[in-house]
Amino acid sequence: MTGLFISFEGVDGVGKTTQVERLRAYLEAQGRTVVVTREPGGTALGRAIRQMLLHGVDGGAADIAPRTEALLFAADRAQHVAETIRPALERGEVVITDRYLDSSLAYQAGGRELTLREIKDLSLWATNNLLPARTYLLDMDPALSHSRLQHAEDRMESAGDDFQSRTRQAFLDLAAAEPTRFRVIDASQRIEQVWAAIEADVETLLKELA
Amino acid sequence: MTGLFISFEGVDGVGKTTQVERLRAYLEAQGRTVVVTREPGGTALGRAIRQMLLHGVDGGAADIAPRTEALLFAADRAQHVAETIRPALERGEVVITDRYLDSSLAYQAGGRELTLREIKDLSLWATNNLLPARTYLLDMDPALSHSRLQHAEDRMESAGDDFQSRTRQAFLDLAAAEPTRFRVIDASQRIEQVWAAIEADVETLLKELA
Repeated sequence: MTGLFISFEGVDGVGKTTQVERLRAYLEAQGRTVVVTREPGGTALGRAIRQMLLHGVDGGAADIAPRTEALLFAADRAQHVAETIRPALERGEVVITDRYLDSSLAYQAGGRELTLREIKDLSLWATNNLLPARTYLLDMDPALSHSRLQHAEDRMESAGDDFQSRTRQAFLDLAAAEPTRFRVIDASQRIEQVWAAIEADVETLLKELA
Repeated sequence: MTGLFISFEGVDGVGKTTQVERLRAYLEAQGRTVVVTREPGGTALGRAIRQMLLHGVDGGAADIAPRTEALLFAADRAQHVAETIRPALERGEVVITDRYLDSSLAYQAGGRELTLREIKDLSLWATNNLLPARTYLLDMDPALSHSRLQHAEDRMESAGDDFQSRTRQAFLDLAAAEPTRFRVIDASQRIEQVWAAIEADVETLLKELA
């Protein structure tokens, strides 16, 4: 049996964590071994990198440059793939990740000064071209997702609504460009409805792969 | 007046630090403003990255994957260029760096599993294509340079002599491929002789740029 790699994407507050856990329970009930992981920070090294990105370093007043930031996210992802994702897939397990390279594409390329092509090339090199078999984009109006967030956790999340709107659009553009890999799910629905849409798709996906 | 960017390369123990200081004194005596810096760890962020590379992170038992390592070195370099090197060059100053991208090419591509082309592309992207006007490669038989080292400081430096020999050859190959940028200096000579060779070349370089 070969492994199955699934990612969840979308701006903060759309309910990714809840749906990841639903999917985990569903697959485990079928007897599959499931590894749930996340980016950034899916490994110890990744968590250290995430600390740098969020809080800077001791004695470091200067801002993190855009290329530095992109390379640090890519380093986190490279380690995540090498240490966690690939070994699990090679054992034939299911890997579900809360965010993967599309988040870099949407947040960095959508919100900052680097091109989509540059960020994508970097991410594909970091992962040695590992893409999910399926990516669920949980999509919602940023005004709604914002109201769901308890508080802004970090500098990414505290960026304004314009940034969130651009990021949402960047995700939708990515989904439109890769319709085979992506499924766009309306995350403004009730949790049960969102899960029903994912469940129906996963059933189809598992049949295709059987 | 435009800035001048010079790098020193070579395996550990060949005397780079001594020659960097000679060159700094020489240029300052001519009234130039000189910034001396180094890789890895030329910035606060870079030092934090270097700590990760040398000592790992808390709770992280797994090895750092080759692509992760390459991306972390590139992140260090990107920040170094953005925060230190480019601003100084834009102010018209001289920047002397103890190691730059050729070290990544020699150590990572020479010693590990990634290709030279991959590491070079990554470094050039990280620096937005900033190359030194001159690179002094201090070259010496590894058996001699090893005896100069007081102690092995980190896992790079504690690698064996085969590794040092391959790295030396990788540096020589890089120099042969870019004869306009590189000058290979026989570092087995006495310190004064090494400096005389560098001084003669720098005089020529400054005349060319004047």
